[in-house]
Amino acid sequence: MNRKVVLYTVGRIIILEGLLLLIPLAVSLYYRESVTATAFAVTVLAALVIGAVLMVFTRRGDRTMFAKGGFITVALSWVALSLIGALPFWISREIPSYIDAVFETVSGLTTTGASILSNPELLSRGLLFWRSFTHWIGGMGVIVLMLAVMPTESGRSIHILRAEVPGPVVGKLVPRLRDTAKILYVIYLVLTVVEVVFLLCGGMPLFDSILHAFGTAGTGGFGIKADSLGSYSPYLQWVITAFMLLFGVNFNLYYFLLLRRVKSVFKSSELWCYLAIVAVATGVIVGNVLPLYKTFSEAFRHSMFQVSSIITTTGYSTTNFTVWPELSKSVLLILMLIGGCAGSTAGGLKIARVMLLFKTVGRDLKKMLHPRSVGVVQVSGKPVDEQTLAGASSYFVLYVVLMIVIFFVLSFEPAMSLEANLSAAVSCFNNIGPGFAEISSNFAGYSDVSTVVLTLAMLFGRLEIYPILFALTPSVWGKKG
Amino acid sequence: MNRKVVLYTVGRIIILEGLLLLIPLAVSLYYRESVTATAFAVTVLAALVIGAVLMVFTRRGDRTMFAKGGFITVALSWVALSLIGALPFWISREIPSYIDAVFETVSGLTTTGASILSNPELLSRGLLFWRSFTHWIGGMGVIVLMLAVMPTESGRSIHILRAEVPGPVVGKLVPRLRDTAKILYVIYLVLTVVEVVFLLCGGMPLFDSILHAFGTAGTGGFGIKADSLGSYSPYLQWVITAFMLLFGVNFNLYYFLLLRRVKSVFKSSELWCYLAIVAVATGVIVGNVLPLYKTFSEAFRHSMFQVSSIITTTGYSTTNFTVWPELSKSVLLILMLIGGCAGSTAGGLKIARVMLLFKTVGRDLKKMLHPRSVGVVQVSGKPVDEQTLAGASSYFVLYVVLMIVIFFVLSFEPAMSLEANLSAAVSCFNNIGPGFAEISSNFAGYSDVSTVVLTLAMLFGRLEIYPILFALTPSVWGKKG
Repeated sequence: MNRKVVLYTVGRIIILEGLLLLIPLAVSLYYRESVTATAFAVTVLAALVIGAVLMVFTRRGDRTMFAKGGFITVALSWVALSLIGALPFWISREIPSYIDAVFETVSGLTTTGASILSNPELLSRGLLFWRSFTHWIGGMGVIVLMLAVMPTESGRSIHILRAEVPGPVVGKLVPRLRDTAKILYVIYLVLTVVEVVFLLCGGMPLFDSILHAFGTAGTGGFGIKADSLGSYSPYLQWVITAFMLLFGVNFNLYYFLLLRRVKSVFKSSELWCYLAIVAVATGVIVGNVLPLYKTFSEAFRHSMFQVSSIITTTGYSTTNFTVWPELSKSVLLILMLIGGCAGSTAGGLKIARVMLLFKTVGRDLKKMLHPRSVGVVQVSGKPVDEQTLAGASSYFVLYVVLMIVIFFVLSFEPAMSLEANLSAAVSCFNNIGPGFAEISSNFAGYSDVSTVVLTLAMLFGRLEIYPILFALTPSVWGKKG
Repeated sequence: MNRKVVLYTVGRIIILEGLLLLIPLAVSLYYRESVTATAFAVTVLAALVIGAVLMVFTRRGDRTMFAKGGFITVALSWVALSLIGALPFWISREIPSYIDAVFETVSGLTTTGASILSNPELLSRGLLFWRSFTHWIGGMGVIVLMLAVMPTESGRSIHILRAEVPGPVVGKLVPRLRDTAKILYVIYLVLTVVEVVFLLCGGMPLFDSILHAFGTAGTGGFGIKADSLGSYSPYLQWVITAFMLLFGVNFNLYYFLLLRRVKSVFKSSELWCYLAIVAVATGVIVGNVLPLYKTFSEAFRHSMFQVSSIITTTGYSTTNFTVWPELSKSVLLILMLIGGCAGSTAGGLKIARVMLLFKTVGRDLKKMLHPRSVGVVQVSGKPVDEQTLAGASSYFVLYVVLMIVIFFVLSFEPAMSLEANLSAAVSCFNNIGPGFAEISSNFAGYSDVSTVVLTLAMLFGRLEIYPILFALTPSVWGKKG
């Protein structure tokens, strides 16, 4: 592995984070929160120094990066971002434990939205802003941002882009990688701004609007109130529903829309599958929870909101769905595992991958009945190569095994129920956020060891397993390859 | 599909069942249970007539059978066996609902051991015998038995053998299929008899010894007392522990032992993996439950018993393990999914398949780091072909999806907890038996619809998905292919 180029890139990422931290610093200063502002200032300084030192010491040498280096770069970058991003919470003493601060930051960056805070309203404005801003940064990806805004010399950056963007296949929209990254971020930014405007029209204060838009855009789910979105008007809840669904769509489709290639959008079988799942799940839940609400429209609103929130792995809520009947809870549990579309900011397995798995199984079943048949799997009318299919199966095995391992390690906790541990494992690994039983309001009840395990689980989920898995494998760190 | 040969084979299977039913009929007569004996006599008659009619009407025509026919034969045979095998329970009115009687019979044949009876001690002797005898028949397989004892003309019987014997790869031990089936059944019979002798030596009555040996041999788990094996002596519990483990081993290895090919046995990586899992799981649980018991030896006995019972998917218990700490319960839950060795009577995913999955993932990970590497997966020192690997992955996807579907359908039950439904789905699909929460003692609480779903789940699990899946696919029933 070419360690120099890896560390050089990590250095750049840290500098970028230092620059991004200037925004919450400004918010703190605006609200005259001197302690928080100091914490941000110290962190900015630390980030710039660490980043600069890393870059200076590794600036010479060749710039080639192979697959292995790409994975390690992404893993190291995200760990560095988390450790530094947690500093403001910890230095300001608003989250006294550094482990908890890292959990909260990783939960933000990975767009999970699980919190160790029982009442986020007690946080200072500056930290509230940073907490939601991490959703926005982490949603589209920090490395994608770096590719978009910083000059790159390396032609091999596709390796790190592939490791950060979710989904089984990552393609370039345009020949130059840098332009692809720029297009993605511009669409992301515009959609976020449009959401802020819609929220403002509903009478939501500017600060709240921006933070909720960050949480929706990254499909994160950090709220700023203890009851998430329960106290907002139906109009505002519908706006959030619509945007959660929009941010769960593959961003490539928005690019096609810009190019007026409407046909390509309509031909996306993943999009149709996504919409069908949302419609069916909402239908089942509305029928199931109807007796709990006064009117049909209320039941419909809460059902559609919750379905959109869970399938996109956002995690916002308008009502306490943990008291819904088992059927509705099972539907939500299944949506958690499926997740949103590939190439969106959502977590979970991703619909494209689920479709590949089903089609592979269907092909194999046909082959068992007709051993001489030749089966080719097609998605959106195009054949998929065997390597992609095998990759999806392999990913699925790892996905299930890792979830079981996380659940198993959590069960060492002496005072947590099976339901809490199972939901914590599923929720963190799929970057959703809320849990059941003891963790239905927050994750504060877990010991430090379990908190670290859940932090790793969130990183595993956001980066789709491989980068973190390789980073935890000692043999990968060798000089070779 | 050649329907004639399929129905002809099913007819033979039904006749074989009629003959097997003579044994519990004799037991009933011996214990002078006239109602039960009548029920058995009626069932025997029905089986012989139905079987004979089927065979007479389909005896002409060619005898070739392809993959599709093999799957459908196995599925139809097992359904017929279950529907007819349930008659004695129902005719005698000892289980008044036919659906419940079918559940109990399928639970027996599939060696699950889940029961709708709150107190099995109330059953007549004849039916108690039949209930446990279904474990023994279903464990090694009825079709295997047919191949062993009835004259066959078809050279294509490997298709039906493959569909009934669990595991990713089924090989012939000797060139002639019929001899393979005979060897398997002789080993099975001898091991069962040896267990009966060991149990008799511990002072267990003959009737109890035979029934417990049936339950152990088939890794079934039907007990004859409400507290399963809790009231028997430590010696007897250790004997059952040892035999549960023995019946969880691939039977091919016993054949190698008979041929004194000890080296082949020691080279089996599946065997070593199986023993290692049992040792580690027992170690973890002993440490975890030590405070609950008076002495180390008591804790050790209960832990080892429960680990052996669960990994082999038998389902016997010596103690109420549902009150054990979460860690021990998680270990047991993971063992449930893994199951015993391929080619044994145990259920679950099977260790050989789990090993293939892990090795495939390991190979794929290596390939991600070194795209040009050529990876060959080896098991027990021999390379495994790509089709087998893809088959294992494909099976795993179906396995997980089906478990989720079963869990989802169960969640329509208005009064059952998530824990009960989840454990019912896992327990029935993996042919284990016991459940948690509302179903910790029996499955009587489920509605008829859910009972049917769980019955199907047990058949899916025992026959390893494909036969039942194909039988439920209308297009497979066509004349073609």
